[in-house]
Amino acid sequence: MTYCVGILVEDGLVMCADTRTNAGVDNISSFRKLHMLDEGDKRLVVAASAGNLSITQSMLTILREGLEPKQEDGPRRFVKDAPTMFVVAQMFGEALRQANDLFADTLEEAGVSASVTFLLGGRIGDGPLTLYLVYDIGNFIECKPENPFLQIGESKYGKPILDRALKFNTPLDEVVKVALISFDSTIRSNLAVGRPIDLVVIPRDSKAPIKKRRIEADDRYFNDLSARWGMLLTEARAAIPDPPFMIDVVS
Amino acid sequence: MTYCVGILVEDGLVMCADTRTNAGVDNISSFRKLHMLDEGDKRLVVAASAGNLSITQSMLTILREGLEPKQEDGPRRFVKDAPTMFVVAQMFGEALRQANDLFADTLEEAGVSASVTFLLGGRIGDGPLTLYLVYDIGNFIECKPENPFLQIGESKYGKPILDRALKFNTPLDEVVKVALISFDSTIRSNLAVGRPIDLVVIPRDSKAPIKKRRIEADDRYFNDLSARWGMLLTEARAAIPDPPFMIDVVS
Repeated sequence: MTYCVGILVEDGLVMCADTRTNAGVDNISSFRKLHMLDEGDKRLVVAASAGNLSITQSMLTILREGLEPKQEDGPRRFVKDAPTMFVVAQMFGEALRQANDLFADTLEEAGVSASVTFLLGGRIGDGPLTLYLVYDIGNFIECKPENPFLQIGESKYGKPILDRALKFNTPLDEVVKVALISFDSTIRSNLAVGRPIDLVVIPRDSKAPIKKRRIEADDRYFNDLSARWGMLLTEARAAIPDPPFMIDVVS
Repeated sequence: MTYCVGILVEDGLVMCADTRTNAGVDNISSFRKLHMLDEGDKRLVVAASAGNLSITQSMLTILREGLEPKQEDGPRRFVKDAPTMFVVAQMFGEALRQANDLFADTLEEAGVSASVTFLLGGRIGDGPLTLYLVYDIGNFIECKPENPFLQIGESKYGKPILDRALKFNTPLDEVVKVALISFDSTIRSNLAVGRPIDLVVIPRDSKAPIKKRRIEADDRYFNDLSARWGMLLTEARAAIPDPPFMIDVVS
């Protein structure tokens, strides 16, 4: 499995993905799921994937080799030439359907899920900083300020903290902290999600530096955050009064 | 959907279930999912169910009317006559398979999941306090001290807090508090789980009183716990240092 989260707030975009893949519990390995697809002057396209690895890789190769021309004598279509993030999202959907056409039936016959979903974030030219969730059949939704995050993969363990903590005006360093707490909860509860975690932070201010970071298994900040969060939760629980209806049960 | 949790610790057994059922988001109602199946002298059998309501109700009726005799001239078999919890768990499996035989094919044709799982807890005579999870095909697992809880239904949102907080030696009032925090997280993240929550607490000491409680939408303790937990999480997040690699991103 996989856990990826994208958070789009007033100050910028944060995308995080784990790297664990497994085919059964005895076949676990590490693959990058956060991909910088375009990183040019005034162009930044980042994708995070969850689901079948063969479909994901085929789909990304299809994009890299360029989609078929729209007109017969037109050029092949590349992400690097797309004029807007909306066009990139459509290209993702198209490539995903093509990759599904290659393998999905065979996979389904073998009882293997072919489903792949993507988080797609970035900015092209003077266009807005955007975050999409692309579904396995190629349609997509866009992240909006009312609910400033999207998740794919093993999303439920880490959702309560996001639901509580994230607002559109949450500062970017707080967003990163919350994202990592969400990963910590997920990793503790599900073996199929694990470090390293890949992280990219894209400030809305295009002059501010973009941060890319891989949080390894020995990352000191993450280890400290995980230990502190555990202690703080214990303290928080202790601070809540005991249920009054339990008074005569417990001596 | 549904969320139920059973927690079996040194001091006793706690079982909790929500009451929300839905067939689509526009057909939401409230059904009791925590059932006292036997409550006699030295007998206590409690079940919590998740899944298809028609299969659940049929299965409980099959149990109430008694399973077919084992021998042709033998008596019908009732939960109230079962000598051990292990026998009750087997009867649950048998009744579940019978209820599945009635409807499962038809439901599957209609694209409706027939899956039902049960938490089954209690004590018979001088036997041990026991907690089982009965799967939809009738097999079951037993809760053991290494991992002192079992969940059914929408279990993932509320699992991280249980993973962190519960040990076999956690006191019973703390267990109830943790169970309610787990429900609070689930309810906030998933509309398909909602109050009232039914709660039963069975101390291991058979002379201590058994607690049954319905936590309604206006329950003061739960509302206070939910508000405090939210504040405490906010304080806990604030107490964790900001990511050091974000220093030059955030002004």
